[in-house]
Amino acid sequence: MTALEIITKKRNGMILTEEDIRFLIGGYTKGLIPDYQISAFLMAVYFQGMNARETATLTKLMRDSGELMDLSRFAAAKADKHSTGGVGDKVSLILAPLVATCGVMNPMISGRSLGHTGGTLDKLESIPGFNTQIPMNAFYELLEKYNFGLIGQTPEICPADKKMYALRDATATVSSIPLICGSILSKKLAENLDVLVLDVKAGNGAIFETKEKARELAQALVSTAGEFQLKTVALLTQMDQPLGNAIGNWFEAEEAIQMLHGEAPDDLYEVTIELAAYMVWLTDQSDTLENARTLAESKLQSGEALTRFREIVLAQGGDVTFIDQPDKYAQPRFKTAIKASSEGYIARAHARELGEVSMLLGAGRQKKEDNVDALAGIKMAKKVGSHVAKDETLCTLFADLKPVSEHLVQRAQNAFTIVSEKVNKLPIILDVIQ
Amino acid sequence: MTALEIITKKRNGMILTEEDIRFLIGGYTKGLIPDYQISAFLMAVYFQGMNARETATLTKLMRDSGELMDLSRFAAAKADKHSTGGVGDKVSLILAPLVATCGVMNPMISGRSLGHTGGTLDKLESIPGFNTQIPMNAFYELLEKYNFGLIGQTPEICPADKKMYALRDATATVSSIPLICGSILSKKLAENLDVLVLDVKAGNGAIFETKEKARELAQALVSTAGEFQLKTVALLTQMDQPLGNAIGNWFEAEEAIQMLHGEAPDDLYEVTIELAAYMVWLTDQSDTLENARTLAESKLQSGEALTRFREIVLAQGGDVTFIDQPDKYAQPRFKTAIKASSEGYIARAHARELGEVSMLLGAGRQKKEDNVDALAGIKMAKKVGSHVAKDETLCTLFADLKPVSEHLVQRAQNAFTIVSEKVNKLPIILDVIQ
Repeated sequence: MTALEIITKKRNGMILTEEDIRFLIGGYTKGLIPDYQISAFLMAVYFQGMNARETATLTKLMRDSGELMDLSRFAAAKADKHSTGGVGDKVSLILAPLVATCGVMNPMISGRSLGHTGGTLDKLESIPGFNTQIPMNAFYELLEKYNFGLIGQTPEICPADKKMYALRDATATVSSIPLICGSILSKKLAENLDVLVLDVKAGNGAIFETKEKARELAQALVSTAGEFQLKTVALLTQMDQPLGNAIGNWFEAEEAIQMLHGEAPDDLYEVTIELAAYMVWLTDQSDTLENARTLAESKLQSGEALTRFREIVLAQGGDVTFIDQPDKYAQPRFKTAIKASSEGYIARAHARELGEVSMLLGAGRQKKEDNVDALAGIKMAKKVGSHVAKDETLCTLFADLKPVSEHLVQRAQNAFTIVSEKVNKLPIILDVIQ
Repeated sequence: MTALEIITKKRNGMILTEEDIRFLIGGYTKGLIPDYQISAFLMAVYFQGMNARETATLTKLMRDSGELMDLSRFAAAKADKHSTGGVGDKVSLILAPLVATCGVMNPMISGRSLGHTGGTLDKLESIPGFNTQIPMNAFYELLEKYNFGLIGQTPEICPADKKMYALRDATATVSSIPLICGSILSKKLAENLDVLVLDVKAGNGAIFETKEKARELAQALVSTAGEFQLKTVALLTQMDQPLGNAIGNWFEAEEAIQMLHGEAPDDLYEVTIELAAYMVWLTDQSDTLENARTLAESKLQSGEALTRFREIVLAQGGDVTFIDQPDKYAQPRFKTAIKASSEGYIARAHARELGEVSMLLGAGRQKKEDNVDALAGIKMAKKVGSHVAKDETLCTLFADLKPVSEHLVQRAQNAFTIVSEKVNKLPIILDVIQ
């Protein structure tokens, strides 16, 4: 067996055996198969796809490329959430402490921002002192004490995915459903969960723009996870405009903290509570989904979720001043308001465009090596369905490390469409797939 | 512009601009774009193809990645032949001296064997002392004296193709028509020819098995070459069984020498004369194709082609003893005859299988780094259409560096099919595309 034979087989649309996939994943992880053969293979998979069996096998072998978390010492039911990535998505920061207070253990491992999408780790690290690089043993201690922890990918878990994700990102092979399944689920399976809740985004700021293609991904994720007896549900959520009002590292952390304090935009509130409710219900912390919702809302209102978040920030070295009083945080040096050019209703606030503008302001990374500016980003003043007067602010662009360029102002302006007829608000939860 | 954007564009089936292709080829040749991005690009091209304009642009930019030959000092008309590769194809060794004696200058640059196909350089180097690594200035001297020379790829000509061909070979992207066009024609255009004659093979031993697909390649090659005002014709020839009777380095050199001495299997004779005739006719060394054929046949019969070949062997350091008396060559230490299991007619002598058996006997390379055994290979005793008695020899396997394994005997046996009904000989020239 050679890598070339397996590439040829997939290129010709044939079904790979477990042995074929093992040869590739094993050889790649060990450095015996070069990047250039794997990237050709990934592009062949992009075009020819993989059936359910191949996808499950890929997922299993990627999971087994590293260690599995051992959470068997903990009695609590374990659940995690994964989002396929969008703009303004700060849900994890609120959700993790929230479900933890509802009795669900959440061993959350997060990633960094790349391209137009943000990353939970960068948002957390905007809190001075917050350390996301925590060894596995210390992570187990956090889980024991707080029912959750907020850390980055460790070298032990799924090394094959780490290598392969970087390659997919550089070779235009990210948006392949079997490869997405392998990447997401291998990591989540390595966490040894009881329940997985997925937030599969559909829209111009998501991996897949159409609801149909996003649904196809959600179904593939749910059915592949099912092969491993992992109880999984996927919420299909809207990503045609940013989630909530804040985009950018500190701005998103701030909006999450504000929600823990009791104040949140509707869409962010709705999607966070719904994801929490599924995690709580499916782990049997409540008897019905409705009761799970009520429980989650009560933990938010009582301030318990905020307290739990404050505890983890303290435990992970962060400065809790900014949890208690987020308005004490430094102000960005540069800001430019984007004004409505006419009176009317917002018909479009293009998520991907705004995400890219935020990245280019300094909030995100074009390349993995780039540094991020905690105080760069966008605050939305209006969203789809809002009425605006002429010259009213649509959003404000912020940056701290470099001024806001005219080019980005123009792009942000063009991300909005204003029409004269009334426009409905966008629904946030489009469907539930289980 | 980034490599990722261009990969994405081609992945999505869009048309690349000259600027896009220049960015990729230039960046790759200079080492600024890594192999893993180019291999993903190549696979995207495999699936999405390239239109005529993109193919011509790719060809031009690959040609311009290196130097062009300067043959303007020579008055003679310049022509070359290129074969898309097959089993037992020793035509170049006969054709080059033959057309040279007909007044055509042939600056032939050849390659090495890889996989089941042989390579002209390895065949030439089976002649003791023969040196194919000749610097460009010495090559010009050979051309001036003999109207031809037999050399390998030089670093000056098409470095982009050199890098890209190795990558295609390792990533299952060889059989992409625009990539084949770019690879073949960039090198031939760098030779600054007046006429190009192509031998596009169709069959199980060729890049494309079906006549339709091979014809598509031939048409793409002829029309792309036409964009550069290079007068080109393609012969579509049969490659379902080996060409001639010999497979393997010395055996093929020997069969070529025997043809120069006046003795040749019908198919080898026919295809060589036809290719020569087109080169002679299209360079205006004769007024009709028929007269060109007659001229070529007369140069072969008179022994002039043999004399010219002997001269080049001498000039390139080879031992002419084996040109004068090929039977003085060493004998292989190991041989096994493959016998007919029943009486009947040969319906199939599978070219690719026999090519792979020959490679595994030691005649070819599985990997580029492998060494070849000059005395390994196969001599065919019967071809499609031949009658055989039970236990009569079908072919004989030879090797000098290691014994003939039972496994290869079995594979060679299975490459033949014997049926009871009479079978026609296979035609050799299937079509002419111009």
